[in-house]
Amino acid sequence: MALINEDYLKLPEDYLFTEINKKVNIFKVTRPASGSKVIHLDKGDASCILQNEISNALLNSVKEMADMNSTHSADTVSRTKELINLVLKTDYESRGIKLGAEEVFLNDSALNAASEVSDFLSKDNIIGVFDPSYPAYIYNNVMNGRAGEKMGDGHWSNLVYIPCDESCNFSPMPPKERVDVIYLSLPNNPTGTTLTTEELKKWIKYALATKTLIIFDASHAHYIQDKKVPRSIYEIKGAQKCAIELRSFSKTTGYTGTDFAFTVVPKEVFVYTEVGESISLNKIWHRKQTSKFSGLPYMTLCSAEALYTPQGQKELKERTEYYMKNAEIIRTKLLSKGLKVVGGENSPYVWAKTPEGVTSWRFFEQLLYEHNVVCTPGVGFCPGGEGYVRFTGFATREDTIEAMARL
Amino acid sequence: MALINEDYLKLPEDYLFTEINKKVNIFKVTRPASGSKVIHLDKGDASCILQNEISNALLNSVKEMADMNSTHSADTVSRTKELINLVLKTDYESRGIKLGAEEVFLNDSALNAASEVSDFLSKDNIIGVFDPSYPAYIYNNVMNGRAGEKMGDGHWSNLVYIPCDESCNFSPMPPKERVDVIYLSLPNNPTGTTLTTEELKKWIKYALATKTLIIFDASHAHYIQDKKVPRSIYEIKGAQKCAIELRSFSKTTGYTGTDFAFTVVPKEVFVYTEVGESISLNKIWHRKQTSKFSGLPYMTLCSAEALYTPQGQKELKERTEYYMKNAEIIRTKLLSKGLKVVGGENSPYVWAKTPEGVTSWRFFEQLLYEHNVVCTPGVGFCPGGEGYVRFTGFATREDTIEAMARL
Repeated sequence: MALINEDYLKLPEDYLFTEINKKVNIFKVTRPASGSKVIHLDKGDASCILQNEISNALLNSVKEMADMNSTHSADTVSRTKELINLVLKTDYESRGIKLGAEEVFLNDSALNAASEVSDFLSKDNIIGVFDPSYPAYIYNNVMNGRAGEKMGDGHWSNLVYIPCDESCNFSPMPPKERVDVIYLSLPNNPTGTTLTTEELKKWIKYALATKTLIIFDASHAHYIQDKKVPRSIYEIKGAQKCAIELRSFSKTTGYTGTDFAFTVVPKEVFVYTEVGESISLNKIWHRKQTSKFSGLPYMTLCSAEALYTPQGQKELKERTEYYMKNAEIIRTKLLSKGLKVVGGENSPYVWAKTPEGVTSWRFFEQLLYEHNVVCTPGVGFCPGGEGYVRFTGFATREDTIEAMARL
Repeated sequence: MALINEDYLKLPEDYLFTEINKKVNIFKVTRPASGSKVIHLDKGDASCILQNEISNALLNSVKEMADMNSTHSADTVSRTKELINLVLKTDYESRGIKLGAEEVFLNDSALNAASEVSDFLSKDNIIGVFDPSYPAYIYNNVMNGRAGEKMGDGHWSNLVYIPCDESCNFSPMPPKERVDVIYLSLPNNPTGTTLTTEELKKWIKYALATKTLIIFDASHAHYIQDKKVPRSIYEIKGAQKCAIELRSFSKTTGYTGTDFAFTVVPKEVFVYTEVGESISLNKIWHRKQTSKFSGLPYMTLCSAEALYTPQGQKELKERTEYYMKNAEIIRTKLLSKGLKVVGGENSPYVWAKTPEGVTSWRFFEQLLYEHNVVCTPGVGFCPGGEGYVRFTGFATREDTIEAMARL
């Protein structure tokens, strides 16, 4: 008799984004045909790939793959090594960080990497998450049996929630409760807020003192403008002993789903057996990688290489600036309407407080029905997101301006 | 203190294919420069994408994605639904199988789907696998804590191995031991052998009687030529109550890694809680899908649609025939050399018994050093593969003919 992993029974029926889609569809079906175009400022990803360097690399890779006599896959192994060297040079050495090539693992998305690291960990760890935070981190721990039960207020009984809200001026500090593993997503999704070098030092100190593992999700690192805000956790001394870092380009280059992502797992990061034996997480990651990962798809390899050419880096920077300008337009408008706003300065996400007494979902519906603009209800990210909504800078400039003009 | 999932410590340092690569690299470095070209008959995937219909769909999708004003992602949801209807019509209704659209889940690979289904299941299930079988099934169960310990002979202590070898004439029958979950990969990888409708009926009868879940990996279904061999497990009455089916196109269309795959999870397939409550696996799969899957990448959606046009189906058939002709060339040659051979008739894999007293790795090395041809040592697939090697039909015709001429 096949037995179910009963932790899966705790998963919700629908994910936040499915719920939003349903509500938008109902609106589209019921509203008068004369209404204006619905503008999506809830997009979580760049939907347009970088032009020229990257799109050409993809086009050429498809042509190569369609040639029966092509030897395109012959040197994949050496090209993959070279790509890792480019990553190290461009994203780390340039910021004074020294890492070895065997400490970088390529993968297809930060989302999958976060799910895999959750699988690596014992069921018995106490997990800390920001409130609000990206829901996938929580669901991974639900599936792995670490979340406990969902309580009446929407929190999970066994997770330690670390407020990322007005109470701490959006600068979460290490919790008083013991945690074994902590997710730091910076810039945070959904709040768009960051921590400075000085603030992050406190987290590293905490992690080193308590042998806590930090899962640092730096998927939005390219949006950081402020010099006092590190792009990589390894800019902080000691981080190579307690943190792994997840990186992805789905938020910038626009090839979501056929994505280039990587995870940094320094050799000095240790996890522990029940009897206290220390194990290098890098060693375990290598074993997992060799059993579960077949290498980057050829197209992804080619587009990732294009991303690291000088021209690719230039295009990446331009695209980042484009989305950040959108975020600025949103931020400025919302502030002018008297809303409290954070984010949008080091992140494409703008996090706005709804007017007194208006819930996230109520604000979402008002915006949809009155202005035909879609945002994301903050409560969907965690109970701590209630009373907020998220806007993103991933629409076109034209649509962003139009949506803001409607308010 | 972050605790490791100790089951991960049991994973091997290197996977079979990493080991083969290492050995081939050593050979390349040490052999005389005058040697002939190394021909790979160990490839597990088609490396060249289908021409015309599919390559054009990929090229057009990249162009659309690079257009900032493109609305390409607008109707992804409805196109995905339409794709599922095409799958049902083409791959199932044409064979008299009736399934609902909500019973088909798209995903990126059968490999990942197999890993996910392993995560869904309680640690306490007894797992049955063919011996030899695809190693990933075993590693998934190692990571999920169901395999027990690796024994001296290479078998895992808690798995039930079902011989797929000469002892049963390569037609494995249900085991006498109780199993809760059984992997049926047919055509089997690596042996290339299949089961007929009559033989499969016995498995369905067994599964229904014992509430065993069948994970039917039909990744190679398109290679089946024999009318007595079902392409889908649902050709057998009762299978919709005990089996899920994994499908993938990485073995035919050649866009591995940016792949189109799907899993069929009929609503009537039940799994059980510890207290015996029955749960529809479809419901759990839906929840997992909504929390973990962001939908098919746009490029994959476009190429999958192209695959289901009449022209796409024609190209799929032609490519399948091409690889099967390669397999036939290999099979014929090996038989003429007096080797015992199975497979290659309903599968691109040819499974050859090595001469008396020659191990899998010894034969692999002889072939590499004497003829510069790479095959896959059977023992890498499971202890039951010792004394066999696998050849695949995925090389070019020219290389296949050349490799066989060297023997």
